[in-house]
Amino acid sequence: MRVLGVDPGLTRCGIGVVETGAGRAVTFVDVGVVRSGPDLPLERRLLAVADEVERWVARLRPDVVAVERVFSQHNVRTVMGTAQASGVVALIAARAGLPVAFHTPSEVKAAVTGEGRAGKAQVATMVTKVLGLDAPPKPADAADALALAICHCWRSPMLDRMAQAQARAAEIAEVHKARLTQARATQEDGSPTAAQQWAAARAAAQSRPAGSWTASGDVRRGPGGRR
Amino acid sequence: MRVLGVDPGLTRCGIGVVETGAGRAVTFVDVGVVRSGPDLPLERRLLAVADEVERWVARLRPDVVAVERVFSQHNVRTVMGTAQASGVVALIAARAGLPVAFHTPSEVKAAVTGEGRAGKAQVATMVTKVLGLDAPPKPADAADALALAICHCWRSPMLDRMAQAQARAAEIAEVHKARLTQARATQEDGSPTAAQQWAAARAAAQSRPAGSWTASGDVRRGPGGRR
Repeated sequence: MRVLGVDPGLTRCGIGVVETGAGRAVTFVDVGVVRSGPDLPLERRLLAVADEVERWVARLRPDVVAVERVFSQHNVRTVMGTAQASGVVALIAARAGLPVAFHTPSEVKAAVTGEGRAGKAQVATMVTKVLGLDAPPKPADAADALALAICHCWRSPMLDRMAQAQARAAEIAEVHKARLTQARATQEDGSPTAAQQWAAARAAAQSRPAGSWTASGDVRRGPGGRR
Repeated sequence: MRVLGVDPGLTRCGIGVVETGAGRAVTFVDVGVVRSGPDLPLERRLLAVADEVERWVARLRPDVVAVERVFSQHNVRTVMGTAQASGVVALIAARAGLPVAFHTPSEVKAAVTGEGRAGKAQVATMVTKVLGLDAPPKPADAADALALAICHCWRSPMLDRMAQAQARAAEIAEVHKARLTQARATQEDGSPTAAQQWAAARAAAQSRPAGSWTASGDVRRGPGGRR
């Protein structure tokens, strides 16, 4: 899986691409930064980000784009521009038919350093180690984009398993609901309800000779033959 | 001038187009809303907004796109999506070579109703009146998009004049700076400084017969012949 990570921003927007290998191994592909001056109109700055991300997607053909999830709590002055840049990046990915994954800054830090409140330097150090680079990528936005891509490589199998488990749980709930509905319908027909069936099985078990079913026995061999 | 106004949002994104006429007259062109469900991935919702705005731009060929400036203070839960949508709209405009103007909600309300804290119903009522519509546009997001476009029609001549005045002030400051630099260079040459020239002119004026330059006279005919 090839992941393009983006640390969104207007003044500096980090872009980093990595690829998953065997196990937790992640290999470096490329890293860069898009810059735009605060004297440019906002739409021109967003255009600079969009055009560059589009070029990276076309050149390096990632399977997924990972973007930092922006929170409004942090630095209210710049957060709107950052959110707008992240929206533009998500749009470019969608137009290329790629899925977009959002990870919070603390998820990224926790994935890469083991500590959700790690500093920028610590994140850069771990990115350098994990990818076997000669020196930490600069500026910090470049290192952050790579950290985001690494985070996605490591989190996505877990997120996939969680999604599968949730889908399975929903399926089981659906089956249970269908059985309940069926049981109620049976009752209306005048045939025995599930509760009546259970009571009958219990009565049958109690009428067995003592010792054939005790608390010390295998409870899975209880009344009704439940497994 | 034809203005496409956008009230950015993910669940509902209002789009309204108006055209300026003589004086403050504004005519209605079209209005609509893009909707996307919260069950869709964020990038798909942004794509829906982008694709629709792009279709409107191609179909109605506006001269400028006016977008609501999003503030992080209001409703932290939805503001990030709104900011991302506004970024996407600005990008689509930039890609079509159109300028983008941002107006705050209170600027829009003040322009349309005369009151920066007007309610949604009051804005809709004024939009209906100004554009001579039979009924208020629904939902509120559609009326807000039209209000934004009207606001731009009325504010932009003033903003243009302000920009021209600022450019003129910057030009004057530049000329003044150049003259100062020249005066300092002249001083280094041993020739009289601006201050020395001023003192000489003042001395000459004071030596004139009384009444030739008084406080009641035209001060522009003062020493040094300043205009």
